[in-house]
Amino acid sequence: MNPVNVAVVGATGAVGSEVLRILEERAFPLASLRPTATARSAGRRLRFAGDEIEVVETSKNAFAGIDIAIFDTPDDAALEWVPVAQHAGVVCVDNSAAFRLRDDVPLVVPEVNPDAAAAHTGIIANPNCTMVTLLMPLAPLHRAARAVRVIASSYQSVSGAGVAGVDDLYEQLEKLTPERDAVRDGEVDALLSPGRAFVHPIAFNVIPHVGSFDADGATSEERRVRDETRKVLGAPGIEIFATTVRVPTVRAHGIAAWVEFEGEIDPAQARRILTTAPGVVVADDPASTLYPTSLMASGKDKAYVGRIRSGGAPNALGFFATCDNLRKGAALNTVQIAELLVERGLL
Amino acid sequence: MNPVNVAVVGATGAVGSEVLRILEERAFPLASLRPTATARSAGRRLRFAGDEIEVVETSKNAFAGIDIAIFDTPDDAALEWVPVAQHAGVVCVDNSAAFRLRDDVPLVVPEVNPDAAAAHTGIIANPNCTMVTLLMPLAPLHRAARAVRVIASSYQSVSGAGVAGVDDLYEQLEKLTPERDAVRDGEVDALLSPGRAFVHPIAFNVIPHVGSFDADGATSEERRVRDETRKVLGAPGIEIFATTVRVPTVRAHGIAAWVEFEGEIDPAQARRILTTAPGVVVADDPASTLYPTSLMASGKDKAYVGRIRSGGAPNALGFFATCDNLRKGAALNTVQIAELLVERGLL
Repeated sequence: MNPVNVAVVGATGAVGSEVLRILEERAFPLASLRPTATARSAGRRLRFAGDEIEVVETSKNAFAGIDIAIFDTPDDAALEWVPVAQHAGVVCVDNSAAFRLRDDVPLVVPEVNPDAAAAHTGIIANPNCTMVTLLMPLAPLHRAARAVRVIASSYQSVSGAGVAGVDDLYEQLEKLTPERDAVRDGEVDALLSPGRAFVHPIAFNVIPHVGSFDADGATSEERRVRDETRKVLGAPGIEIFATTVRVPTVRAHGIAAWVEFEGEIDPAQARRILTTAPGVVVADDPASTLYPTSLMASGKDKAYVGRIRSGGAPNALGFFATCDNLRKGAALNTVQIAELLVERGLL
Repeated sequence: MNPVNVAVVGATGAVGSEVLRILEERAFPLASLRPTATARSAGRRLRFAGDEIEVVETSKNAFAGIDIAIFDTPDDAALEWVPVAQHAGVVCVDNSAAFRLRDDVPLVVPEVNPDAAAAHTGIIANPNCTMVTLLMPLAPLHRAARAVRVIASSYQSVSGAGVAGVDDLYEQLEKLTPERDAVRDGEVDALLSPGRAFVHPIAFNVIPHVGSFDADGATSEERRVRDETRKVLGAPGIEIFATTVRVPTVRAHGIAAWVEFEGEIDPAQARRILTTAPGVVVADDPASTLYPTSLMASGKDKAYVGRIRSGGAPNALGFFATCDNLRKGAALNTVQIAELLVERGLL
C-alpha cells in the first residue's frame, strides 16, 4: 500500500487516542500523521511510534496535504469541519452521527459491506458502537436466514460517553464504595457532586438512557441501532426495537439480542456460520462457563458472541454479544475503513 | 389481625435479615418471633423492635408452636426443612425455588394472584426476584390486552447472589479501582483471588450467566422467569424468552422487556393502567430524565416502570422496570404472603 497523509481530528479524546494507538499497532502506511484538536488541547505532544508529535488546532490549514482525515469529534464539530476537509479534497472517515444516514454517505463496516465504500463522495461514515456490537453477529446470520425482527437490549460502558464518563464512574466509586448503607438504600445523591457525563449517578446504577430522547420516547442511541443496522444490511424493512442502557463498566458494550428469521435456522447452524465470520469470535460453551463478558472484549479487536439459543418463536434465536466500544465499535473500524480506501485505491 | 407465632428460617442471610426488618417496619402482628439458621450462626443475637433475640439452630424443635415459617434458604435446605415444618402443622412461605412449580403449591404475588393462596396445603411459594420485576408491570397489562410473547433481558445486582455476592463486588472494586489500565485492557484476572459468588470478576463486568445452565443453553434463572410468570398469570401459553445478566450493582434488578399483545394497547393506555396498579410506580417522563434506575428502586417497596414505548410489531410495547430484589423481589413479598394468610384466616 502506498503511504498516505493522515489527520486524526479529535486526537486527544477517548476514541481519538485509541485511533493513534491502532494506527501504530497495525503499522498503517503513513506518509505523515497530523493529530488535531480544539484550541484547548493544541500544543500537547503525543507519543507515536517512538516519536513525539504535536497536536495542532483543527482549522482549514490543518487539512492541507492530507489524504485521509479520521474524525472523532462530537456531531457539531463534525458538521463544522468535515465539509471543510471534504472541500479541500480530503477523504473524511467520520465517527460522529452527523452524516451516517445521508444517502450520499456510505456507512461502512469493512467485514460486512466493504463494497459500499466505493460510492463515497469524500465522506464515509463510521457506525455507532452499540450498533456494531449487534451487527457483527447479526449480519452473517441475516445473510443466511433473513432477519425480520430484532429485539435488543444493551449493556453500555461509561467510556461510550468519553473521558468524562470514565472520570464520573471512578470519582463516584471513590465516594460511594465506603458508603455501603447509602448504596443499599439508594441514598447516594447527597454524597455526589453532579457528574459531567451522566444525569444520574452511574456507580452501582443501571440507567436506561443513552443519547437524547425524541417525542416518541426513544433515544437517539436506540434510533441509531435501528436505522444504521438497516442501512448497513441494506434491509430497510427489518423491525428493530432497541433499549439502550448504561451500566457501570469501563469498556466494551454488551447486547442481548433476540432475532426472528424468515428462514429456518438453529443454534448449531448459527454457531457454524459465526465461527467463520470475519471479526467474530464464538465464545459459547456454557458447560465450561464460556460466554462473552465485557472484560473478555475489553481492549480486543473482535466481537464476541455466545449464549446462542432458540426460543420465543419459530425460527428465532437469542444471543449475547460484547465488543470493545472504543476499538471495533469506533477507532478500529475507522482505521479499517482507511485501510480499505488505500487498498482499493478509493482516494 | 390476631397475632401469630412466626419463624424466619435463614434469618442471618441477605434476605432473612431483610425479612426481620420488614416485619418490624410493617408492625406485623407477632405473638412470637423465632429466627433460625444453620449451626454456624446459631447463638447470634439479632436486634428486633428494640429487643435482642437469639438465633436458634434450624431443627424439628424450632418449629414447635409456630404458625407461619418464612424460609429464606438455599433450595437444598428448603427441601430438607420445609416438609418437616409442614408436617408439624406450620404453614411455610418458602422463598427457594424448590417448590415453586409443584401443582399443589400456590406461587403467590399478593398484588397479582392473592386468591391462589387459599388452595395451599401447608406450603406457599414466593417467586424469583427477577420474575417479580417483570411480573409487576406485566400482569396488569396482560389482564388488559393478553400478552402472547415476552422478550426480556435482565440487569441483576450482586445481592441476588447473597452476602457473598456483595462481598465479591466490594473486594474486587477495592483491588481494581486503582488499576485503570488493567480494567481498560480486560487484564484483571491476575489481580483477583477467585470470588465466592461468581465464576468471573463482576467488578467492571457484565456476565450473562445467573443460575445454572441446562442442556439447551438456558439458565435456571431464565427458566424461572418463563415458568413462574406463566404460573402466576395462569397463562401457560405465553412465549417468554429471557436472558438473565449480572451487572455490578448492589441492589435492585432491572428488566428491559418487549411484549407482544393479542389486543390493541398503546403507551398512553399502558401508563393509565399501570398508574392504578397496586405495587407499581410509573416513572416515565423522559423529558425530565425520569425513568426507573437501580438506585431509584434500592431499598424501596414498589416496582418502578418507565420507558414505555410502542414498536417492533403491531400491538407491542417495550418497558424498563426496576425492583428491589431483596424487598419486593424476596423478603417483602414473603411478608405480604404471611399477612394475606393472617387476614384471610388461611392458617
